[in-house]
Amino acid sequence: MNFSRTYTLKEISQIIDSEFVGDKNFPVKGMNEIHVVRAGDIVFVDHPKYYDKALQSEATVILINKKVSCPEGKALLISEDPFRDFNRLSQHFKPFARADRSIAKTAKIGKNTVIQPNVFIGNHVSIGENCLIHSNVSIYDHCVIGDHVVIHAGTVLGSDGFYFQKRAEGFVKLKSVGRVVIEDDVEIGAACTIDKGVTGDTTIGCGTKIDNQVQIAHDTVIGKNCLIASQVGIAGCTVIEDDVTLWGQVGIKSDVTIGKGAVVYAQSGINGDLAPGKTYFGSPAAEARDKFRELALLRSLPKLLEKIKK
Amino acid sequence: MNFSRTYTLKEISQIIDSEFVGDKNFPVKGMNEIHVVRAGDIVFVDHPKYYDKALQSEATVILINKKVSCPEGKALLISEDPFRDFNRLSQHFKPFARADRSIAKTAKIGKNTVIQPNVFIGNHVSIGENCLIHSNVSIYDHCVIGDHVVIHAGTVLGSDGFYFQKRAEGFVKLKSVGRVVIEDDVEIGAACTIDKGVTGDTTIGCGTKIDNQVQIAHDTVIGKNCLIASQVGIAGCTVIEDDVTLWGQVGIKSDVTIGKGAVVYAQSGINGDLAPGKTYFGSPAAEARDKFRELALLRSLPKLLEKIKK
Amino acid sequence: MNFSRTYTLKEISQIIDSEFVGDKNFPVKGMNEIHVVRAGDIVFVDHPKYYDKALQSEATVILINKKVSCPEGKALLISEDPFRDFNRLSQHFKPFARADRSIAKTAKIGKNTVIQPNVFIGNHVSIGENCLIHSNVSIYDHCVIGDHVVIHAGTVLGSDGFYFQKRAEGFVKLKSVGRVVIEDDVEIGAACTIDKGVTGDTTIGCGTKIDNQVQIAHDTVIGKNCLIASQVGIAGCTVIEDDVTLWGQVGIKSDVTIGKGAVVYAQSGINGDLAPGKTYFGSPAAEARDKFRELALLRSLPKLLEKIKK
Repeated sequence: MNFSRTYTLKEISQIIDSEFVGDKNFPVKGMNEIHVVRAGDIVFVDHPKYYDKALQSEATVILINKKVSCPEGKALLISEDPFRDFNRLSQHFKPFARADRSIAKTAKIGKNTVIQPNVFIGNHVSIGENCLIHSNVSIYDHCVIGDHVVIHAGTVLGSDGFYFQKRAEGFVKLKSVGRVVIEDDVEIGAACTIDKGVTGDTTIGCGTKIDNQVQIAHDTVIGKNCLIASQVGIAGCTVIEDDVTLWGQVGIKSDVTIGKGAVVYAQSGINGDLAPGKTYFGSPAAEARDKFRELALLRSLPKLLEKIKK
Repeated sequence: MNFSRTYTLKEISQIIDSEFVGDKNFPVKGMNEIHVVRAGDIVFVDHPKYYDKALQSEATVILINKKVSCPEGKALLISEDPFRDFNRLSQHFKPFARADRSIAKTAKIGKNTVIQPNVFIGNHVSIGENCLIHSNVSIYDHCVIGDHVVIHAGTVLGSDGFYFQKRAEGFVKLKSVGRVVIEDDVEIGAACTIDKGVTGDTTIGCGTKIDNQVQIAHDTVIGKNCLIASQVGIAGCTVIEDDVTLWGQVGIKSDVTIGKGAVVYAQSGINGDLAPGKTYFGSPAAEARDKFRELALLRSLPKLLEKIKK
Repeated sequence: MNFSRTYTLKEISQIIDSEFVGDKNFPVKGMNEIHVVRAGDIVFVDHPKYYDKALQSEATVILINKKVSCPEGKALLISEDPFRDFNRLSQHFKPFARADRSIAKTAKIGKNTVIQPNVFIGNHVSIGENCLIHSNVSIYDHCVIGDHVVIHAGTVLGSDGFYFQKRAEGFVKLKSVGRVVIEDDVEIGAACTIDKGVTGDTTIGCGTKIDNQVQIAHDTVIGKNCLIASQVGIAGCTVIEDDVTLWGQVGIKSDVTIGKGAVVYAQSGINGDLAPGKTYFGSPAAEARDKFRELALLRSLPKLLEKIKK
């Protein structure tokens, strides 16, 4: 998330009532999670295991729970609870605004776009031209939709990321203030759910086609011209490169990369990166030809063992 | 389901036009299914195989299709079709009432609770304080929601249990008249479905967090502080104890118990009870380390068999 | 799809601006896909591999991209792009009509049918008597629903088939102009999605009961008195015969036939036809007893191999 203007380190520290290390006028332009941070961003870290990663990331402002030595050209915000204060900042800069009507006045809707009945369109949503949004679709605040996009009935864009930290008092939620970005010529089936990014964007690339009941979690980025069949579930922060085909009921873990042009057969479970251009099957998945050989072997095993016995 | 007052055995017998065995003033306080009955409840049984179980249950009024000998301190309702007459009773005491508006006048909504556009809230629904109900959510009659609950767009609470009896003329439905009860601090994702109990409650315990597109069937009870990832499906009358974690696309059979703190990996299929505190994987599932060993063995099998051949 | 009247070959050729082979008055009554065509229908074919199949099908008008010799008693429409021109025809005969209200004036709704709040009912929808349509359901144009049908909240009937052709410029969609037909006494759970046929019908037979979050794709035909549990996904053009039971999270591929009375256990993946009356399990599925034996063998394998070593 980029702020609407550049803030100073001091201004930010006052919002969360924290100490800071660095020039009080150090520029702060936004806040983001570790995997997408850039110069000017705040990143948070609350576990010594990840200190180095955060301090050495592209982020130039580190919200941290220990007064470590500050890297050259960066600044620190010292907090007893960086998770809580990251939430405070995101709520300060992007507070939830209750809707007062089904289609917000601040929503922009392009020429020739058709909105069917009972659709909800939140604040500051932007929808391009020649789109067709079917009935009972819900589009949360700040979602961005390109041109020639079709969204079928009952689909939800921009629900919160499923991101909780376990604490003694129960699960605490990292508040989602990112966006869903749907590029041009995308079609999304009925009853799909696409969560917004926590601070960044969940993105569906140009020309990608998504069937019914597909789940796409926060901060996941899907490339161009992918084909995603029904009931596929893709966890958070995953990258699906261009021209990927996922058949029905496939599940994909968080934080993995599916290489360009990969094909994943139905009901497979993906728990690691997949190479480009190859075909996969199984749960956990392997290259399809290996998996099929394995399955054939398993079927022939009783006779094989009989032979060995003899 | 508890009745609004205590009825007499005779009154009940008149509603379903049946004979009865026992004192005509025998008190009847409610009706329930066999796994949750208490003293004062009616239970029904229509197969000799289950007669003993019903007659010896906590229920004190047995709706049965044979004039068996009546246990001490209990009463019988004799019916040629107990299933049909149980339905008649549930429809008598809790008839479906058509909605005349999107948010029923009889619904109670607590202080600071935000209801986004296009939400349906049925008769006698109760929602606590500081809740956020997103757009296009459907909440059927009689659901009960605690404080600080978030429900994302498109989710359905209180749809009928999937409970049919096969008969010569086709499937006959056991009518659902129970409730969905969501305790405090629960978050439910988008496009989830949680069925009401048939006569009892489907319950989601305090602090439990549920991701998008999760299905929870009738009369299932989920404990406190569970984490349920996207596209999980949990069948009816199942008990998930506290602190359980279910990863994406897990499926759980009806009438099983998942022990406190158990963890089930993605896409697993659970067809029996799981011990507390352990980790499971596979379809059908086993302890994860055993399953992983099995999978490793399967992958190494071709080379192993090659060796044996030599 | 049948046209509202019989057209002549010449009239059709003028709509798509194509040459034709045959009598200019050759009768054209409708258009359909290859697996459901009848005399009077247009079928399209654009790959030499399928020319013979199309020319020898029941269809009497073949929209084709080569001037082949015309079979006796048939006619040809010659097009450089039959896929595009098939779309043109379907859009000509059944153009999308934007809704101007939640329940279209052209919709017919039978006696004693209850429509709960926030439901969308499109143009020319027909709903029978004694139905109950719960809140936030979406019913696209031209769907047909029988008597005594219950549809739970959030369900979508009639969304477009997921049918795309890959081209240099990206995926091109075969437009869906068929219908969803729900016969009498069907019950459909919450948040289900049933796509319309591309040109034909997606049909759910009398007395079939469908649980929550079930996906049924275009042109699939489901028989009478089937039981389909939650989160099942059925791909396009598949035939499920009468009395079939599909347990939770089953996935079924397109273009297969599931025989009468077959039972498929939870989470199974079906990639071919299933025989009637048998029970199946696994992904890919086999007969359940074989699959269970295979799984038992796999579990006993470590000890077995130990023995062999000795």
